[in-house]
Amino acid sequence: MKIAVLGGDGFCGWPAALHLSASGHDVTIIDNLSRRAIDEELGAESLTPIRPIEERISAWKETAGRDISFRNIDVAQDYDSLLDFITHEGPDAIIHFAEQRAAPYSMKNSRNKRYTVDNNVNATHNVLAAIVESGRDVHLVHLGTMGVYGYGTAGMAIPEGYLDIQVANGEDVIEQQILYPTNPGSVYHMTKVLDQNLFAYYAKNDRLRITDLHQGIIWGTNTAETSSDERLINRFDYDGDYGTVLNRFLVQAAVGYPLTVHGTGGQTRAFIHIQDMVRCVQIALENPPEAGERVKIFNQMTETHRVRELAHLIGELTGAQVEMVPNPRNEAAENELHVTNDTFLELGLNPTRLSEGLLLEVEQTAGRYRDRVDFSKIPATSTWTADNEAGIPPSLQGK
Amino acid sequence: MKIAVLGGDGFCGWPAALHLSASGHDVTIIDNLSRRAIDEELGAESLTPIRPIEERISAWKETAGRDISFRNIDVAQDYDSLLDFITHEGPDAIIHFAEQRAAPYSMKNSRNKRYTVDNNVNATHNVLAAIVESGRDVHLVHLGTMGVYGYGTAGMAIPEGYLDIQVANGEDVIEQQILYPTNPGSVYHMTKVLDQNLFAYYAKNDRLRITDLHQGIIWGTNTAETSSDERLINRFDYDGDYGTVLNRFLVQAAVGYPLTVHGTGGQTRAFIHIQDMVRCVQIALENPPEAGERVKIFNQMTETHRVRELAHLIGELTGAQVEMVPNPRNEAAENELHVTNDTFLELGLNPTRLSEGLLLEVEQTAGRYRDRVDFSKIPATSTWTADNEAGIPPSLQGK
Repeated sequence: MKIAVLGGDGFCGWPAALHLSASGHDVTIIDNLSRRAIDEELGAESLTPIRPIEERISAWKETAGRDISFRNIDVAQDYDSLLDFITHEGPDAIIHFAEQRAAPYSMKNSRNKRYTVDNNVNATHNVLAAIVESGRDVHLVHLGTMGVYGYGTAGMAIPEGYLDIQVANGEDVIEQQILYPTNPGSVYHMTKVLDQNLFAYYAKNDRLRITDLHQGIIWGTNTAETSSDERLINRFDYDGDYGTVLNRFLVQAAVGYPLTVHGTGGQTRAFIHIQDMVRCVQIALENPPEAGERVKIFNQMTETHRVRELAHLIGELTGAQVEMVPNPRNEAAENELHVTNDTFLELGLNPTRLSEGLLLEVEQTAGRYRDRVDFSKIPATSTWTADNEAGIPPSLQGK
Repeated sequence: MKIAVLGGDGFCGWPAALHLSASGHDVTIIDNLSRRAIDEELGAESLTPIRPIEERISAWKETAGRDISFRNIDVAQDYDSLLDFITHEGPDAIIHFAEQRAAPYSMKNSRNKRYTVDNNVNATHNVLAAIVESGRDVHLVHLGTMGVYGYGTAGMAIPEGYLDIQVANGEDVIEQQILYPTNPGSVYHMTKVLDQNLFAYYAKNDRLRITDLHQGIIWGTNTAETSSDERLINRFDYDGDYGTVLNRFLVQAAVGYPLTVHGTGGQTRAFIHIQDMVRCVQIALENPPEAGERVKIFNQMTETHRVRELAHLIGELTGAQVEMVPNPRNEAAENELHVTNDTFLELGLNPTRLSEGLLLEVEQTAGRYRDRVDFSKIPATSTWTADNEAGIPPSLQGK
């Protein structure tokens, strides 16, 4: 298949592009390198020494013997180039990772809220409008988030995108299936709710074939392909804005920084290993919806954990201290989370278990590159409202 | 109250601004005059001879003795000016009409789809972010649309924004109230769905006080205030892009053009007179939600009608011919529509009935200005997909 990976230089996009290339697909990466620019803006950088995109691609050619094309296009701003690409290259599928993807970054200030909404909505809508205008039959696979659901309903398992409901109408009861009611936890998560509405409309009006992957929090850094040569290494964010909870704990453990648990740590989250993510993307590509079908939604996660339990698990594995810090976010202190993920399991996904991969990750990535850590970037300082406090460990305050 | 009317030069914004000024409020109009620019772009103009905004405002000062301020700000693009206004002027309420509001215009081509999404989402989000950043307590009243609901569910009355549902969970049944599941009929309507999600988030995270008015199709042209001097006259769109169905029928009747019924005309729509719209805005202003309360949603409509029945009614009143034309839209041929609108009625709205006001409108507006009609602008030519046909009367094709 001819596949365009929008955002193919990013944390999920890069390993997905390599995995699809390794699987024999003809891959073009489209990226405006905005994630690297945000590193500059934040004065933070990947724990792992990622190489420039050109070097990555030539190293891939050298090691795997496979070509990947690259085009520097801002899909949110440069519609004409995107349309030209789709019209003339005729990809069979487009995988859309080209969005600002950090909740804390999206909440840092008005500028970031506005950038996240403007960038994400226009990126998604431009792709949809360009597919329609090109007249091409393209399967669009989008990276969404479990965060569109909010965090669980009274112990009920969250279904894959659609909810069966009953509505009373006088004496009668009407049965319907609806998009699961959303309850996003940040401006970033909200943009994925907006995306979902864009997809539903274009699937209905224009019969576009769309798959939306409601992904849990990624853990791990590398896949079979990104591990095959150091020049192919994937990015690993440990800073308070872009670092995901588990990866941040791993770095904190590696450098002797307290494991910062926000609030009570009672938040339950869904997780998936990065190797499973790339497999899921491939499975989604191989199982597209038909034209005229509604958006196909998969829950792309493999296990759920409560944050404080993860912290204690890593503390036990590594000897790191756990420290409770204020929660910079606006969220319930404690939540249950049960998730249905039957579709990927039925289609052959064999999950990497957290309990098996965790220690390896600590040693091979967090430990190996710990000299690159800037301690000042570790705490989460973006607050959800003026009343929230930054997640700085009391033991380190003023230091 | 100090009130900012965003989009206060437009079809709904102008009469609302005058009505609130006449009621003793201190009104500032914020508008970038984009609607006038679209007239130029489409080569269409208001049936009624609307005056430049400066002349409107000075005529209002002269006739009513009341000051209205005007600022030319593009709220979707110029965040800093908007923030500066809110921070330094401290409005008690902002009424947000500043969106591209025509479904056919939004579907005309990719450029218009993209403009509508970009403009409407960024306008709404900028207002929300600016209110938060200003730290001011502002009641935001937004003009939404009945179109977010889709067109009815199995004969059930559409509630005001929120739906009571039951969800089976094993042996148990969970009861919840959710935002009514949306089913927008155009890119324009979809932007109002996106708005709704933005509002829900900011009401939750930032405790903003927000009212969303789910408005039906406006009919009529003038209010008590816009009728008081010809220089205050409101716009009246009869073209295929911006003209609403009833106003277009009135002009068609006045100039002897067939009344163009799309498809079978079996579409049932909700309507409200423009005089009732301005009253509803005032009622909404006087009944704001509390901080921390969810978004307050009103159904702002007073009656429902099936399009073909409206055409026949106007045909009987005026002798005009009814002609069935292809439907340029992608929609169900026939739909029922039942709507709950108890809140405004309880709060004192006394609706203007279509059956009473229609003939007056034909004579006083459509008839009076019929020499200004450009026949070529009458048919609806924006099609929802490449497979839809323009709504040109067979009897006039090729002429």
